[in-house]
Parts: sequence; C-alpha cells; structure tokens
Amino acid sequence: MKTVIVVHGGAWAIPDLLAEASVAGVKNAARAGDTVLKNGGSAIDAVEKAVRSLEDDPTFDAGHGAVLNIDGEVELDSVIMNGETLAAGAVASVRNIANPVSLARAVMEKTDHVMLTDRGASMFAERIGIPVSHDLVTEPERKEWEHSNSYGAGVKQLYNTQWGHDTVGAVALDSFGNVACATSTGGIRNKMVGRVGDSPIIGSGGYADNRSGAVSCTGHGESILKVTLARLILFHMEQGKSATAAATSSLQYMGERVKGCGGAIVLSSTGDWAAGFTTPRMAWASIKEDVLHWGLNPKEEFTEMLKC
Amino acid sequence: MKTVIVVHGGAWAIPDLLAEASVAGVKNAARAGDTVLKNGGSAIDAVEKAVRSLEDDPTFDAGHGAVLNIDGEVELDSVIMNGETLAAGAVASVRNIANPVSLARAVMEKTDHVMLTDRGASMFAERIGIPVSHDLVTEPERKEWEHSNSYGAGVKQLYNTQWGHDTVGAVALDSFGNVACATSTGGIRNKMVGRVGDSPIIGSGGYADNRSGAVSCTGHGESILKVTLARLILFHMEQGKSATAAATSSLQYMGERVKGCGGAIVLSSTGDWAAGFTTPRMAWASIKEDVLHWGLNPKEEFTEMLKC
Repeated sequence: MKTVIVVHGGAWAIPDLLAEASVAGVKNAARAGDTVLKNGGSAIDAVEKAVRSLEDDPTFDAGHGAVLNIDGEVELDSVIMNGETLAAGAVASVRNIANPVSLARAVMEKTDHVMLTDRGASMFAERIGIPVSHDLVTEPERKEWEHSNSYGAGVKQLYNTQWGHDTVGAVALDSFGNVACATSTGGIRNKMVGRVGDSPIIGSGGYADNRSGAVSCTGHGESILKVTLARLILFHMEQGKSATAAATSSLQYMGERVKGCGGAIVLSSTGDWAAGFTTPRMAWASIKEDVLHWGLNPKEEFTEMLKC
Repeated sequence: MKTVIVVHGGAWAIPDLLAEASVAGVKNAARAGDTVLKNGGSAIDAVEKAVRSLEDDPTFDAGHGAVLNIDGEVELDSVIMNGETLAAGAVASVRNIANPVSLARAVMEKTDHVMLTDRGASMFAERIGIPVSHDLVTEPERKEWEHSNSYGAGVKQLYNTQWGHDTVGAVALDSFGNVACATSTGGIRNKMVGRVGDSPIIGSGGYADNRSGAVSCTGHGESILKVTLARLILFHMEQGKSATAAATSSLQYMGERVKGCGGAIVLSSTGDWAAGFTTPRMAWASIKEDVLHWGLNPKEEFTEMLKC
C-alpha cells in the first residue's frame, strides 16, 4: 500500500517573521515521517518521529519553544493513537519533558492506562528513565511572556494578531494499511496553571481508526473540545464524505456553533488526505508517492517532487 | 415541556452487600434532580444537584467514598456540559475536594477554559473559596485498599468480581427544552497517580447537545476513551436511533472492538431515555412525568408513582 504522512505546525495568525521557519519546520517533519514509512516503519513510528521533529524545533509551540502559562512555566499536552487497535496514550500538564509525544506513547505501551496528568505523568517519566529537561523555554518566548499581561490578551493575540503560537501534529498511513495520529502542544500563553485544551484529548485533539482514518487538530482548544472535532470529522467520513469535505464542514460547524477557529489535517485509510483551517494561516506539509505538498495561506498549495 | 432526569451510580459487579444502598442512592439522586426541574430549575442545576447527592453518598466511588490510587490518595475527575451552548467544564486528578462536579461547573462558568488538572484545579478551587476536604476516605475503602496489591488486580476485581467501585452521573432535560450531563468519579482502585479515565473527558465520559441529547458513561474508562462512547451514542441518535438502540449498539461495539464493558444513561432532547450496561450490574434511576423508574440487574425495571 502507498504510504502517506501529513503534518501541521499549528493554525493561528502566524506572523511573517515566523512564516519561513514554520514552512521549513513542517517540511522537515514530513520528510522525517516519510523516511520512517519508506523504510517499512509503522504509522505510529512515523507520527511520533514527525511530532518529535516539530517539538524539537523552537519555531513551534510544543516541546522546546512552548509558550508559558500565567506563572511563567511550560506545561505540555500530547496524545498518540493507533488506528488498528484504538490503543492510545496521552499526557496533560506535564512539565520539563522535551518530547511529550514519546511520553504519551510510553503511557500507551507500558501502562494499563491511557492518560496521565501533571504529577503522575512526571513520576511515570522518571520511573521509565525519560530525562528532565530544563531548557524548553526560549528567549523570544520569555520576552513575549513578559510583555503579555493577561490570559484574555493572550487568546486575543493568539487568534487575532501576530502573537503567540499553537499546536503541532501528524497523521500517517503505513504500508500495512494502518493509520495513526499524534498531537503535541504547549497550549495558550498565559493559560491558567493546569489548563488543558483539546490536544491530549482523544476525539478532540486527535483520533485514529483504520475503519475511517486519522485526524490531528489545532486552534482554539476550548472550541475544539466542545465539538469533539477530530471524532466529528471522522464521523463525516464514515458517512461517505471526502477528507476535504469532512474537514471543511466540521470546521464550519465549529465556527457557527461555538464561534471557534482552528485547523485539521485529515487522512483516510485509503490515502485521501486534506489540510484545512479557518484561521488566517496554518503551516502544513504532506508526502504521498514521493510528492511533497505544503502550504501556509488559505487555498495555497505548493508541490515538489522528491528524489527517490 | 415535560422534564426528565436520569442518574447512574456506576456500571460494575456491584456486590449484594452494596445493592440496597446503591439503589437507595440513585433514587435519592433522581429525586434531588427532579425537585430542581419541577421548580423550574435548569438542566445544569439538576445534574449538578443529582451528582452532588451521589458524591456525598459514601456508597459510590465519587467524592466521599472514592477509591484510593496506588499511593493511597483520592484523585477525582468530573465533567459537566450544557447542551444549549456546548459550554463545558472539567477537572482531572484533583485532590481533597468534596464535590468535583461543582468545581467543574466553576471552571465552565468562571474561567475562559474548559479543563483544569491536578495542581491547577486545586489552585483554582482555593482561589474561588471551595474548601479543602480531608474526610473523603471511608474506612471500608481504606481496608479494601490495604487488601489489594496491584492495579492489575484492581481492574480484574472491579469488573469481574464483587470488589471496587465506579463512576456516577446524571442527564437531564429541563422545562426550557435544554439538556445537560454531569459525570464524577474516583476512578479505579490502585490506579497510577494522575491516571485519568473517561469521566472528565468531553465526548467520552459525557456529552450534551440540544440537537440530539445528553449522555453520561461509566465502566472501564480506558475502553470508553478509545471509542469516545458518549459522542458515539449521540451520533447514533443523530442518525435516527432511539436512546435505547443507540446505547445498545454503542456498548456492543465497545465490547467487540476494544473488549470493554460499561454502561450509559441516555436522554434525547425530546425526552426519550435509556439506561444500558454490559457489566453485571448498574444502579440507575429516572423520573419522568412523576413516575420513578429504577433498576440494578440486566433487563430489570421497577416503577413507582411519585406523589405530586
């Protein structure tokens, strides 16, 4: 079966200053995931690899470079899900972990549970030997945080102006016909301590099911939670809609029903894929059959043939 | 419009020792919610009142009487959701709060967020004046915990034998035609610190939407998360299924796909309701048009006319 990887670097008002780095970051992440798939790796391996690449890139609000909460701390959320078995792992409000997506995968594979929060997630990370990271805060984010005053301003800035960051994610279809998704975020600048948006929530920030496909969401987390956006998109696909139509109608519904903006990358089990958003911009990239597609602005799609 | 309240006290192998108290508890909770509705109160007020009643009853694994985690602590999860606006509030892994459902409601009404975890939930509770409670652990639960040795045994005991407890929840339809849901739990005995199951997760432990209805779930949390059970049931209802048919087919799917047992109370926006489960027992009660229905064993339904 032909493999597919799609990644996003967050749906928000990405400033021109970050445009080039955002596009470069999602292209790198798509290539990282594609390499896994081309070498016969699983969809789970591919989405983890792609999301780790985005977490390690300080351009994005996940892992290194994540935004700070109201107390000036980094608190991270992530989910990963296997579409073959519906096995899933998630961590919420975890501190000082460079790659929350890998901790989420460990929750999935090494515990009887699906989700661990805050203290418990840190205790588990320590027990399995995941090192504590104290260098997640970047100098630009520290300055942005110092200039921001309240959560209200944070949300407004994030979705209406050039300030702030957002979530990263990936979906993949491997050569065995299995799909997977992963999502990772630092959330919203000046969020309350312990605030969790959609990102680590199964059915909201992501969902993967071989019977339909895989989705990773981004945008205003509270709105995405209220409409369980990832699961909603896949329900539309179960009803026969294409990836594009399912993303478009679900994002439109979210806008009408709860006045929320966001984006999603969507991949069907047959390889039909889409990247949709209702925010000013979303950096995304995909690779299918050695063709790299990417975009940043609405209705924008660039194409590049990869050398095999 | 005719009002309806349905409550549950958890789907598991309820031992005979707890049968009478479980039935009495859900009947009391249904009456508490019904009184709110009869007095013109909102569905949100009714489900909060009913769930507080169940949290305060030490028979149930929520609030006072909750089970202990692997470290011998109580960690509580809850969600509440308003079907008119899709507004929602949730808390996860919160300690020393007697009524997590009311804290979840405060998250919904007093913050820009939907979900707070652990430390952050406690900080918020303190800030809004919700008192710390140090008497949530009952003597029977302390003894049970001391006799149990591992999480593995905990899960097995919970779903296959007479030991352990489970979640509580309520759904309501008020005289204005609005629906709401609420769910609250102490989770599974000997769970890892920070473990979160389905209960506080929108779309899994509960969902409410005036366009379809309201659901509160109970059972094996990790399985419910994997199939986003509450949202799945409502998707079936959006496709035209009755509350009973939607609950039955969704619980059957969960059993087949991820080998999980559980239960759900379901209420459509037109007042069609159901209480279904695939565990040995689930204590439930409903009140519609001054008729109290309740049950504990499969296919069991008792009826009592209430004095107006």
